[in-house]
Parts: sequence; C-alpha cells; structure tokens
Amino acid sequence: MYVDGLENSIYDRQVFQELRAGRITCAVVTMAFWEDTLETMDRIGQWHDFAEQNADLILLARTTRDIEHAAATGRTAIMLGTQNSSPIADRVRFVELFHDMGLRVMQLTYNNQNALGGSCYEPRDSGLTRFGEQVIREMNRVGMLIDISHVGERTGLEAAERSERPIAITHANASSLVPHKRNKGDDLITAVAERGGIIGIPTYPKICGDYYAASLERWCELILRTVEIAGIDHVGIGTDIGRNEDQAYLDWMRVGRWTKGEFYGAGSAASPGVTPPPDWMKTTEGFPAVELELRRHLPEADVAKVMGGNWMRVYRDVIDPT
Amino acid sequence: MYVDGLENSIYDRQVFQELRAGRITCAVVTMAFWEDTLETMDRIGQWHDFAEQNADLILLARTTRDIEHAAATGRTAIMLGTQNSSPIADRVRFVELFHDMGLRVMQLTYNNQNALGGSCYEPRDSGLTRFGEQVIREMNRVGMLIDISHVGERTGLEAAERSERPIAITHANASSLVPHKRNKGDDLITAVAERGGIIGIPTYPKICGDYYAASLERWCELILRTVEIAGIDHVGIGTDIGRNEDQAYLDWMRVGRWTKGEFYGAGSAASPGVTPPPDWMKTTEGFPAVELELRRHLPEADVAKVMGGNWMRVYRDVIDPT
Repeated sequence: MYVDGLENSIYDRQVFQELRAGRITCAVVTMAFWEDTLETMDRIGQWHDFAEQNADLILLARTTRDIEHAAATGRTAIMLGTQNSSPIADRVRFVELFHDMGLRVMQLTYNNQNALGGSCYEPRDSGLTRFGEQVIREMNRVGMLIDISHVGERTGLEAAERSERPIAITHANASSLVPHKRNKGDDLITAVAERGGIIGIPTYPKICGDYYAASLERWCELILRTVEIAGIDHVGIGTDIGRNEDQAYLDWMRVGRWTKGEFYGAGSAASPGVTPPPDWMKTTEGFPAVELELRRHLPEADVAKVMGGNWMRVYRDVIDPT
Repeated sequence: MYVDGLENSIYDRQVFQELRAGRITCAVVTMAFWEDTLETMDRIGQWHDFAEQNADLILLARTTRDIEHAAATGRTAIMLGTQNSSPIADRVRFVELFHDMGLRVMQLTYNNQNALGGSCYEPRDSGLTRFGEQVIREMNRVGMLIDISHVGERTGLEAAERSERPIAITHANASSLVPHKRNKGDDLITAVAERGGIIGIPTYPKICGDYYAASLERWCELILRTVEIAGIDHVGIGTDIGRNEDQAYLDWMRVGRWTKGEFYGAGSAASPGVTPPPDWMKTTEGFPAVELELRRHLPEADVAKVMGGNWMRVYRDVIDPT
C-alpha cells in the first residue's frame, strides 16, 4: 500500500490517472496555503465534484477504513489537507467544523507566523502560542493530524511535546543531511518520532539538494539516512509533488496576500521559477520504482512501512474515531 | 413524543430545563436570520458548547435515531436550523458542507428577497429562481428540510412543486383563518400537505391573531381548523417561541443590516416592541396542556400526530440517510 503524505498539485482527471498508475492508495492534498474559510470551503466543494466525476479513480477518505476501501476497489483515497490554519479564521471551534467537512491534516503555520506560532522563514520563532496550544488540543480531540513541515523549529518542538497524539512532518528533510530553512533538526525529528509520529520525505528538489535529487538511487539513500535518524517506523514519503503547477500558482503559494514584494519560498532570487520535478518522479507513477530500489537495501516488511505502512499507523492513531 | 418544529429563543441552561419540563423530545433552533457563513459557523460552535455543557438535558440531532436516543435518555434533541439561506453565501456546494456541520432545516428566504426567491414581505414575489431550484435539488440530495414560513407565496408553491421530498411551513398559519402577510393561502398549505409536508402552528400572538391567541382552548381550535385544511397527517407545532428575546434581538431579526430605517416584521409601528408570549405558552412547559386539550377533540393517535408524530415522519422522509 503506497501513501503520499503530502501533495501540492492542481488536480484534474489526468493526475488522478497518474495516481492510479503509480498504485497510490492514499494521497493527502493541499487545499489551502492562504485560503480563508470560504475559499477553503469552495475547495472542499471542488473535491466533492472531483470525487463525483472521477468515482472510478478516487474517493474522499475520512477514516483509514475509507483508505482500505479504496485499496479494495482499486482507487486512490484522497485525504483533505491544508498547509495553513488560515481556514479556521483564528476560531478554535472551527477545527471541529472543518473536521466535520472532511479536513484531516492541517499545518499549524505556513511560511509566515500566525496566531498559533512561528514559521521556519521568520527571523525569530515565538514558539507555540496559547491559542496554538488550544488548537492542538482540539485537533487531538476531533482527530486531525498536526503538520509542522513549514513550522518554526521551536514551535514544532513544542507542538510535538504538547500534542497527545502523534504529529507529522509531512514533507521536509533532516537539515543535518540537507541544510535548508525548510528542513528540520535531528532533535525535532527524533522528538516527533519518539511520540509515534512521522517524517515524510519530499521529492521536491529544492529541499532535497542537488546530491540526493540527482537520481532515484540517491533519493533512496536520503530515505535510508533519514531512517537512521528517525527509525524505521517513522519515515514515509510526502512528495510535495506539484502537478500542473505554474508560475501563478507558485506566486500564490509564496506571496499570497502578505507582501507586495517578492518572496521565493524554498527557491531564491537566482532560481525564482517553477522547479522541474526530478526525472525519476515526474508524476506519482514513480512510486513502484522506489519500492524496488528500497528492496535492495531493506527487508520487505521495512520497505512496506516506508512506502505507506507508517502513514497508515499514524492515521489510525490520530484520525480514526476512538 | 413532543416536537417543536421551530424556535426562536436565546438559549441558556434555564431554557433547556424548560424544554425538559415541557417534555419536548425535539426542538429546531434558529441559528441565523441574516448571519453569514462565519457567523453561522460561530453559532454551530456555540451549540457544540451548549451540548457539552448541558449533556444531561440536550443532545445535537443529525438523524431521527438521535431524536429517539434523546427520548430514551430523557433529553431534548436539538436540531440545527436557520431561517435564511445567508449561511451558504450563494454557493450551492455549501449546502452539503453545512449539512456536514449538522444543519438540518433551512429556510429559503427570510423577510427579504434573495438569490433563491421572493419573500412574503416583498411587494412582488419573483417565484423560485434558477439558483433556488439548484439549492432545492441539493437540499433534497443531502437531506435538509426546506422551510418556507417567511417565503413568498409563489416561491413557496414552486418550492413545494420542485422539491422531490416533503417540505415544511415550520411556523405560520392559514391566512384564511388569520389574515397576515406571514400566513399562507390554503392552496399553498394543501400543496405542501399533498406532497407529504407539514405546517407547524405557531404560538407567536402576532400571527395567530387576538381571537386564537386568547386562550389555550382557542389556540387548539386554530389547530383543529388547520387540520381541516391540511389533513390530520400534516399539522404540527412550531411555536416560534422567543425565550430571552429582547429589543436588540428583535431589531436584529427585523432590520439586520438591510436597512438604516425601520421595519416591524410581523409587528407594526403601533406595536413595535417584543410581543409578550401568551399566558398558556410562556415557555415550552405549556406543551403537556396542549395535549390534554387536544384529547378532548381528537382520538389519541391523532393527538400524537399533531404533538410530534407528523414532524417525525417528515424528518424520516427528508433528513434520514437513504
């Protein structure tokens, strides 16, 4: 069972066909970077349409039973996620309401500080705020996975400590392997792992670095080295793949409505544009080759954990009704 | 089993105790007159708080099973309703999202024309719009009861005709019995009844008129005469009771944000203030006396239909998952 713990695409039927061709059983999709309550609800509505119009390829998952049903019927379970808490409009009670609407994975902050805490790109990280603590408690209660991929190091660590359920770095690397503001220190990764959480390894070249992005073999080496840090039960894949991503979408992600100036996210002024995906993961059709390569290095049971089993355990622990 | 098909109160623990003292098994509450998406979501959040803090008295109902569970555990099932479609922000897809959040009864228009159709207070009634038709189709699909109490006569009639499930006049009288803009013609009432729907008789004196509001006996006469129009299977109670209602709340209901001038709703310039409830229904504790009075005129089985059985049938037909 393959799980892609974080995707960033603009979806259409072709992308759903690629998910099937890649034998992806579950993919977490990004509905919001800066989107507010209504804009995110529009996106949920769009996903209802997608599910209705592509019922042969996908279904919307609210529990791991739905994911297993997708596996049994040869479809991909789409789990709804956001890369920011902007949808809840600083209202703790909206966590439950968005859960009712199907949201299952929410990042505390995106690239900018918000009422919950600090971001990896801010000059100083406030740590988790009192409101951030309340949101974590509520996400724990209703069953929504906390994502800290873009969250500041200190805020992320405090989130890991305060959460009573496992949390996720859905798409980032160890900064000890690939130095980058978006990547995470070993202490944070181990704190997440010790509490039953997971780190999803991205294929986005900007945060994998030239060495590890150069080939499938190198990228699997990145996985193996992350396993040495986090442990075999705490590494998965979160491609951060951006199918159909164009400059306008990238601008929205990076600049949103927060600045009239420039901001390059994981890129830079020297490399401002859309980063081409690596040859070996142009689409999620690259997943089966990852499994084959990992089998050269790991026992079959361990490969299964990395390819999807670890995500499924986290989803069971966090998302399924207790 | 007693059902109050429409209430208009500002709730607190005392009102919940009154519901229990009145042996009300289900009450539909008003969360929005003019409230927009976020404001209505705030109200839903408030109801989650109410339910948590008063779990000995109430529960939130999503299906008739929940109502039956309330009956079995000696509590009142609160069913979430709005008297306007303002929460959906003119987006047809928000019908399903509000259904996910627990909304089960929605009025198409309140006192003013909107994108769905005309209101009983407008000089001319457009009838149902194309968008109104789409919303009805969606409410039918997801299982949300269509309320036309304040809707214009023509729009209401077209809603009854287009809906594939029963609809409700949750709180209004027959204008042939009590002439008032808010009351409904016999043709509309019979159209609703013929399609399995229901009319809820209010205790709000302004739309019952002095004669019928004068005593419990007279008000039960109003019920009996409405039964002659709609049939014994199509009449219930929808008190429109407004516990804790004050002038500010009344102003919001009537004037909202749509005029800087005056509007008196069912009242008038000569009688602009809060109307005191009738002595015999100051709170929902008046329900058992209604049952006793009706038993003097109707067989026990028919009394049970009026006191709640007819509402339950409509909820089963409309709200329960198919």
